Amino acid sequence: MLAQKAASMLPSQCPAGTRLHAQPSGESVMASVFDDVRERSLRLVAPLSPEDCVVQSMPDASPAKWHLGHTTWFFEQFVLAHAERGFKPFDDAFAYLFNSYYNAVGKRQPRPDRGMLTRPSYDEVLAYRCNVDERMRTLLHRGDLDADANSIVEIGLHHEQQHQELLLTDIKHLLSKSPLLPVYSDGPDPDPVDPGAAWNWRRFGEGMREIGHARDAGFAYDNESPRHRVFIEPFEIADRLVTCGEYIEFIEDSGYDRPELWLDEGWTFVTQQKLRAPMYWAVQEGWMDIDKGRQYTLRGVRDIDLAQPVTHVSFFEADAYARWRGARLPTEEEWETASRDTPNEGVFLESGALHPQASGDARADAPLRQMFGNAWEWTGSQYRPYPGYEPPSGALSEYNGKFMSSQFVLRGGSCATPGSHIRRTYRNFFHPAARWQFAGIRLARSVS
Amino acid sequence: MLAQKAASMLPSQCPAGTRLHAQPSGESVMASVFDDVRERSLRLVAPLSPEDCVVQSMPDASPAKWHLGHTTWFFEQFVLAHAERGFKPFDDAFAYLFNSYYNAVGKRQPRPDRGMLTRPSYDEVLAYRCNVDERMRTLLHRGDLDADANSIVEIGLHHEQQHQELLLTDIKHLLSKSPLLPVYSDGPDPDPVDPGAAWNWRRFGEGMREIGHARDAGFAYDNESPRHRVFIEPFEIADRLVTCGEYIEFIEDSGYDRPELWLDEGWTFVTQQKLRAPMYWAVQEGWMDIDKGRQYTLRGVRDIDLAQPVTHVSFFEADAYARWRGARLPTEEEWETASRDTPNEGVFLESGALHPQASGDARADAPLRQMFGNAWEWTGSQYRPYPGYEPPSGALSEYNGKFMSSQFVLRGGSCATPGSHIRRTYRNFFHPAARWQFAGIRLARSVS
Amino acid sequence: MLAQKAASMLPSQCPAGTRLHAQPSGESVMASVFDDVRERSLRLVAPLSPEDCVVQSMPDASPAKWHLGHTTWFFEQFVLAHAERGFKPFDDAFAYLFNSYYNAVGKRQPRPDRGMLTRPSYDEVLAYRCNVDERMRTLLHRGDLDADANSIVEIGLHHEQQHQELLLTDIKHLLSKSPLLPVYSDGPDPDPVDPGAAWNWRRFGEGMREIGHARDAGFAYDNESPRHRVFIEPFEIADRLVTCGEYIEFIEDSGYDRPELWLDEGWTFVTQQKLRAPMYWAVQEGWMDIDKGRQYTLRGVRDIDLAQPVTHVSFFEADAYARWRGARLPTEEEWETASRDTPNEGVFLESGALHPQASGDARADAPLRQMFGNAWEWTGSQYRPYPGYEPPSGALSEYNGKFMSSQFVLRGGSCATPGSHIRRTYRNFFHPAARWQFAGIRLARSVS
Amino acid sequence: MLAQKAASMLPSQCPAGTRLHAQPSGESVMASVFDDVRERSLRLVAPLSPEDCVVQSMPDASPAKWHLGHTTWFFEQFVLAHAERGFKPFDDAFAYLFNSYYNAVGKRQPRPDRGMLTRPSYDEVLAYRCNVDERMRTLLHRGDLDADANSIVEIGLHHEQQHQELLLTDIKHLLSKSPLLPVYSDGPDPDPVDPGAAWNWRRFGEGMREIGHARDAGFAYDNESPRHRVFIEPFEIADRLVTCGEYIEFIEDSGYDRPELWLDEGWTFVTQQKLRAPMYWAVQEGWMDIDKGRQYTLRGVRDIDLAQPVTHVSFFEADAYARWRGARLPTEEEWETASRDTPNEGVFLESGALHPQASGDARADAPLRQMFGNAWEWTGSQYRPYPGYEPPSGALSEYNGKFMSSQFVLRGGSCATPGSHIRRTYRNFFHPAARWQFAGIRLARSVS
Repeated sequence: MLAQKAASMLPSQCPAGTRLHAQPSGESVMASVFDDVRERSLRLVAPLSPEDCVVQSMPDASPAKWHLGHTTWFFEQFVLAHAERGFKPFDDAFAYLFNSYYNAVGKRQPRPDRGMLTRPSYDEVLAYRCNVDERMRTLLHRGDLDADANSIVEIGLHHEQQHQELLLTDIKHLLSKSPLLPVYSDGPDPDPVDPGAAWNWRRFGEGMREIGHARDAGFAYDNESPRHRVFIEPFEIADRLVTCGEYIEFIEDSGYDRPELWLDEGWTFVTQQKLRAPMYWAVQEGWMDIDKGRQYTLRGVRDIDLAQPVTHVSFFEADAYARWRGARLPTEEEWETASRDTPNEGVFLESGALHPQASGDARADAPLRQMFGNAWEWTGSQYRPYPGYEPPSGALSEYNGKFMSSQFVLRGGSCATPGSHIRRTYRNFFHPAARWQFAGIRLARSVS
Repeated sequence: MLAQKAASMLPSQCPAGTRLHAQPSGESVMASVFDDVRERSLRLVAPLSPEDCVVQSMPDASPAKWHLGHTTWFFEQFVLAHAERGFKPFDDAFAYLFNSYYNAVGKRQPRPDRGMLTRPSYDEVLAYRCNVDERMRTLLHRGDLDADANSIVEIGLHHEQQHQELLLTDIKHLLSKSPLLPVYSDGPDPDPVDPGAAWNWRRFGEGMREIGHARDAGFAYDNESPRHRVFIEPFEIADRLVTCGEYIEFIEDSGYDRPELWLDEGWTFVTQQKLRAPMYWAVQEGWMDIDKGRQYTLRGVRDIDLAQPVTHVSFFEADAYARWRGARLPTEEEWETASRDTPNEGVFLESGALHPQASGDARADAPLRQMFGNAWEWTGSQYRPYPGYEPPSGALSEYNGKFMSSQFVLRGGSCATPGSHIRRTYRNFFHPAARWQFAGIRLARSVS
Repeated sequence: MLAQKAASMLPSQCPAGTRLHAQPSGESVMASVFDDVRERSLRLVAPLSPEDCVVQSMPDASPAKWHLGHTTWFFEQFVLAHAERGFKPFDDAFAYLFNSYYNAVGKRQPRPDRGMLTRPSYDEVLAYRCNVDERMRTLLHRGDLDADANSIVEIGLHHEQQHQELLLTDIKHLLSKSPLLPVYSDGPDPDPVDPGAAWNWRRFGEGMREIGHARDAGFAYDNESPRHRVFIEPFEIADRLVTCGEYIEFIEDSGYDRPELWLDEGWTFVTQQKLRAPMYWAVQEGWMDIDKGRQYTLRGVRDIDLAQPVTHVSFFEADAYARWRGARLPTEEEWETASRDTPNEGVFLESGALHPQASGDARADAPLRQMFGNAWEWTGSQYRPYPGYEPPSGALSEYNGKFMSSQFVLRGGSCATPGSHIRRTYRNFFHPAARWQFAGIRLARSVS
Repeated sequence: MLAQKAASMLPSQCPAGTRLHAQPSGESVMASVFDDVRERSLRLVAPLSPEDCVVQSMPDASPAKWHLGHTTWFFEQFVLAHAERGFKPFDDAFAYLFNSYYNAVGKRQPRPDRGMLTRPSYDEVLAYRCNVDERMRTLLHRGDLDADANSIVEIGLHHEQQHQELLLTDIKHLLSKSPLLPVYSDGPDPDPVDPGAAWNWRRFGEGMREIGHARDAGFAYDNESPRHRVFIEPFEIADRLVTCGEYIEFIEDSGYDRPELWLDEGWTFVTQQKLRAPMYWAVQEGWMDIDKGRQYTLRGVRDIDLAQPVTHVSFFEADAYARWRGARLPTEEEWETASRDTPNEGVFLESGALHPQASGDARADAPLRQMFGNAWEWTGSQYRPYPGYEPPSGALSEYNGKFMSSQFVLRGGSCATPGSHIRRTYRNFFHPAARWQFAGIRLARSVS
């Protein structure tokens, strides 16, 4: 019922009169993409009540309503305010409420207090979206925007796709804190897949590689540039992600109890937090029941499927697992090198799977499996600027560059990433202790 | 509009079929009180949206929805489960979700995580209330309840009245965290009152006094018993509460900067928290603007009325203020002694004032003013059991006795207390640093 | 050897020339007491190295060297500075370093940073003591001090006795943190004593009692005054302290696992701290090994003697134990009433026992046992001012009054209290979670 | 006097009978280096009292006595225990007390509790050193050690040199917490140096570089290997360190108040800690007095010399400073490339300067100045393993590799580093918020 209610507020049903009457046949591609992306966000909250959308379950997470408002504010602040004649903000307070971290734009609601925003209501935020969407469409259809503005619209859409993934992982975290362990989205489980034999190692020889995004190759974030040369030593990389079954072997071999397998910071983390398994795996009286292992997913509590990629692990767990296997994580440059012949296909948000899926059989001559979608892959690279990196000018200079310390790069996207959002050169980044993202493990090793 | 929506769910509009068809003329008084009290809770949430009702703004506060569910669970758990034939709980999970602290009854949602309960929804909790209310009314009308059960119903209603006050103070705290500083309830300000001259001291001679609740004197909590003898030295007590104007004199005399005025624990508290004024008083860049002093109230941001009693002060501030005046706080026994000829009248929840009001003129021969309602009065007594105190048996033994350490007693009720809830012998208690209650200051002093 | 070194610095061996040449036969009693008390402090540190004396093991504790300096500064600041002609401080910095909490006297080293004071050295602090002692003796022998100054000397000596007890309990805490669990003072164990049968209850009838210190009855702290009347209901009190054997019954009956036995604040305390036994009792793998129970004492690791009074328990444990026995703790007024015919005798600091000792046999007609010395007795009274209490004027107003919140009163002294320091009316006070003092349990109960 | 006392315990004065009688003329180089390094540690503590040596001023720092014991235990544990016939530990407890973090070797005193170790005494630790030194010398002179053992002796000596630097920076931190701000070592200030004009940029072209330690090039830590190829884009690097005068310009330009200059993590750090200047710079009432700028040094409180390199800055401050200058920090590979023609000379520990010194005049054709010694140089590289890195086997595998997350690399050594300890390939690492090391800033920038 709630889903129905939200659905009835999808952009096409904005209150009469605010909708453009005629859709010119020559509608710009951008306008069409704009509608698609904006509607996707609403579909994601459709299964949720306004109450689900207001609560903040931890300082790292944001309420769904805040995601809806913030992504809207982005267009209002960075596009409309500059390009709309006689611009007036929808509501003067929203710049304070929905700014995330742009110091250049002014003060803002402190991040850990986003959950205090019971006002404006969910309905008012939907109205805010409708209003901004209409004004944006007017501009997009008129073709009034100059190149700079168009490029900011493009950033805004990618920005919204990022928030779609965060919205899903934040909601998963919130619902998991409910003793009722509610189902976000129902649906049949995928057919079980034979995990097959162990992964295959694929070898890549030494050589100079081009890493990063080339200037004329379409949209990319500033942190993917400039394209530059890196010399890479020979290495091997696994042709699929580590599975839950393989991760359970690590647990059963006392992986969480052996300090020699862990980075010092990781050992402190898992012992202080008393971690014994990936996040959301069922535990009984403080100890995971492996035989009957269950986990919380967006489809509710399900059996752990041994063939599925393990996910919701921290960098520290990924790193310790790799060490236990006598391997290591790939660097981000190795990962990008290895992905060069892999098609950008996989289990993305659009699939509706909402969880990583097992890969099919491996063939020695097939491309690497699961490089895109399914689960973000922790790399061994700390997130730092590329040689010659320059942040963009203006407020958007704060978009990426200021987070370049103490985080690790993840590559490849996940089951919560929109498929059109991901690229070979895409650099995601999280603190090494973060576990609420769909992050998994791919092994690599040096060879001589 | 939201108010309308909630109002439309008041008990009398419970879904058809679940309401008793005929109200027998001989309806018990208890049934009538039950309806009144239960409806009062719904009226309190009428101005709020479901979103307002789900968020927890600090660990000490609870969401309004939780208050609604918990007070309902109290009747289901302690009355229906014992007195209803073929009892089945409305929902098996609710005993976990809505138990507050009764260890004897089982496990429960941790207090700081009450804000994670986006499910059940506000509507479902209202339905829970309707259901339990109907079943309670059936029992109450049939007169089926024995004396023990009736006494628990009575406790349950007083319990709900306590939660009505907490619901209001918790909501005030939540709304104050919104940058929008929303109005909970609109309405005209009271006519200004001439604060008149300073308070009058009223003298009470030494003597043996009877303190506490006598066995046959109507309902009281266990912590008010037994009635016992206390020898009291002569003392004087102010005939009204300290006003905002008088409190500002303390601030302007550097009251918050002079350690000799404070208990050591209080000095640490105000310096670490950087307090400079009562809670909710407007501050500008970390410093209160006294000339144009403004405060947040349940009616929105208003001028500080110098004649109104100061409120939202901690015990530490009340104690320091009194020391600065060369006085002290009364003990709870002195307060009870002083109240013996004072009628139980004042500004209560029913008045709709939602804030302490100035008293009229003082006359030397009049009773003490503002003893009941307006603002709870911090006493100098730490909350400990009376001589011979025995907690009740069973789960309700946890109601009061287990909080008897490190808290101070407050007396007299406030503008958020239902008028029928308060008694001369009533002992409220809070930690000395608590400021979100409507607590104020009455001075006393020893005389020889 | 270290003991020898410190002993060689006892006041009588102060560097030649600084010592008074002739001790007049008419030497004042005060001068003699002064020497005794001051020398006692040095004897307490004799078994310690300068390294033992500089470290602060927790914020609540102070280094032994700080105790030595602070008690000396007290005489310099409050006596010499007022009474000595041409007074110059020994070292300008010491007023900052060795002020404890007297805001009126100026700024000071923050309490949690007392352990940073590696300078001045232990030897320099001893020289400071010698210097101040000589100057004090000059004044005391000349009889130059007026009544006010003499009364401050008296306070200073009692103040030093308080610090002697703290010095011992702080050192015990520090040494217990050493993996070597060193012996502070060696010596034979006392002969085992037959614990005999259970305690006897002694009954005291209702009546008006005089509580507190009478003006002309010798020295007392301000917090013991004024003497005042209290009406006391009839009660019974145990004629000895609870023993270790009796406390182990509580542990074995799952006392630490039953929330219904605890105050709410106490339950949070013991569960968060994972407490299972009194402080310093040996534990193995998180669980006390009762059969072979061992404990850390100032004489090193020893067997738990079942007949000895249990000590190093918090108020919360004392309170829970009493509730488990169907009893309660006495109020401080009951304790004072019960002590009226009990001689001020017991196991004090001078005995050298350094641990509570078992009592001899009980006789029905004997006075109450163990009322003084052995272990402080937690009362059920929170520490608040007596009716008509006035703190002294001047800096010493901060001595006692400002700690009158959130603490509980203890009575009777302990094995670490100098025998001449304790009185029937003496009010010690600690936070209810404090465990590092020699505090034990005496039971009481209400009777009709 | 204290210095004298400690000096009298230098190895050559170990108690008679434990010293080798004859020094064979063919004494091994290793034995001679061993003596030099071991004696250096004692000279560093000579100005300190045993009390100075026992206190731990923060969890990151260790007491000087612990450094002395730990470096000795290293030889006992990793050399004597394997190579000495009939080995018996000097004291069974010391393996527990003086193990730093080697999980493979057993349990250990928790790092934040190292300051609790008042026992063994300073004298006993010196005796421990004497004993182990004698036994080590016996082995070294006999030439009994195999290649593996010899290599561990070498590691042990480098390990001790690292601890010499930490000992100095830890002592500086401790002494700075004393209100007396004591002088560690007296001596004349260096002659003032004309800071001259701005630094010169030196250009390095693009190309493939060899980075890291080659197998046969003498001693190096495992983290400097393997030597590997890196392609480096063209860059420029400053020919000297940033001076205090240049850093004050940043402060005066509101550098600490402009979020756009900071990494997000750094902005949170400096605002939460309220930082306004490098560590140890004099502040008055929370605000640095720049005109009369003073700082705490190991020679006591001194004027800030504008020509000296700024030091005691965090990575975050170094990074923000560089951004403010329109530059950035060099990567560690750039730094190593730039240092290839720079002689390993500079202001090291042996100079006794104990503070970075101003450089002489710059000449366009001179080598880069201040690359070695003076102050560690924060690089923009997070500390991660080189391609193909393998930790050593055994307990020493824990030496370096397990710290490879969330830290940044520093290069070049400081005024507290022994000159023989540093190499071009040397990788030091600290958390980006660390300020108590002698760390400074060298600028770099990308060029095309």
